[in-house]
Amino acid sequence: MLKLFYTPGTCALASRIALEDARAEYDIVRVDFSKQEQRSPEYLRINPKGRVPALSTDKGILTETPAILVYIAQTFPEAELAPLDDPFAFAEMQAFNTYIASTVHVNHAHGRRGARWANEESSFADMKAKVPETMLGAMELIEFGMLEGPWVMGERYTVADPYLFTMSRWLEGDGVDIDRLPRIKDHLNRMSMLESVKRALADMQ
Amino acid sequence: MLKLFYTPGTCALASRIALEDARAEYDIVRVDFSKQEQRSPEYLRINPKGRVPALSTDKGILTETPAILVYIAQTFPEAELAPLDDPFAFAEMQAFNTYIASTVHVNHAHGRRGARWANEESSFADMKAKVPETMLGAMELIEFGMLEGPWVMGERYTVADPYLFTMSRWLEGDGVDIDRLPRIKDHLNRMSMLESVKRALADMQ
Repeated sequence: MLKLFYTPGTCALASRIALEDARAEYDIVRVDFSKQEQRSPEYLRINPKGRVPALSTDKGILTETPAILVYIAQTFPEAELAPLDDPFAFAEMQAFNTYIASTVHVNHAHGRRGARWANEESSFADMKAKVPETMLGAMELIEFGMLEGPWVMGERYTVADPYLFTMSRWLEGDGVDIDRLPRIKDHLNRMSMLESVKRALADMQ
Repeated sequence: MLKLFYTPGTCALASRIALEDARAEYDIVRVDFSKQEQRSPEYLRINPKGRVPALSTDKGILTETPAILVYIAQTFPEAELAPLDDPFAFAEMQAFNTYIASTVHVNHAHGRRGARWANEESSFADMKAKVPETMLGAMELIEFGMLEGPWVMGERYTVADPYLFTMSRWLEGDGVDIDRLPRIKDHLNRMSMLESVKRALADMQ
């Protein structure tokens, strides 16, 4: 049985929605950041990076959202969550997911996790102050380019969609007015209406 | 014909080595960062992110190293550069590549690209000073965990190998003593002996 190590409010939401989209059977194991459980010896044995998500499978443990999302798409092919038979379209989807992981999520993290990259309080404040600008800039490249609409890849829903949705939900807290990003706002609203998203968000916000 | 938009010294090296591994026919287009060509209107039409690498294909342009690497592996299957028929092993390779893109490369970038995430000179200095620690920490997770040896995925060479190699070459400049990472050092030396790597490095270092 699949087991998703999960913390509400984190990027692990994307993997959870994908599992719901796939109608997978899975258990949720909540990792409580308020108790620093992600740094406990028990959890570090599961994911030495001390992060969520991690997905426990019958073959071992997987980490990193772009890898988990594609794994779900490949192991539940009937759900048609990725263009698995078209290397170019698949690479475009992967490029989108990598951009989220290495740019959008990283920009967001500077608002509260500055200690990953610096030591001084003044640096943390400087980083935090720039988050509205860097998040808007990163999302504008999606708004005006990558987001084909209505879904990320166009007419076809893929695992890129829950990943974008997870980031879009952070915009308000990051000081970005989503009304400046009308296509992303439309995507957020469209996602919010999906039953899979409602189920993923139902039990623990 | 494939065309790789390339700048020596950047992570684009990984894609170039993979193209050599695949014995692909491709052209190199050098993007000169010293002339800010990555910010030119011409280049921004190719890659609106203003980064390298970008790979021009007969179907369009791809960006983001993890996406490009898998695209090369999928479109040159005879080169056997990824575990394409094993979703779990493929996801492990993808998790490795995502970790490089979203953690290792991001740590490195704080040494010289602090203006992406902050505004003050004092913050840039603070970030830069922390790079030896963050790069060593990130590489230790590879040294003591992810790197199966002799290649990233074990006995089988994959596109994760040129990506790790590209990061390992940055360690000295990032103030990390590679002798603290003997398995990564062995990997670096092993990679340096490959003909594909020599070809990728021959014409423009």
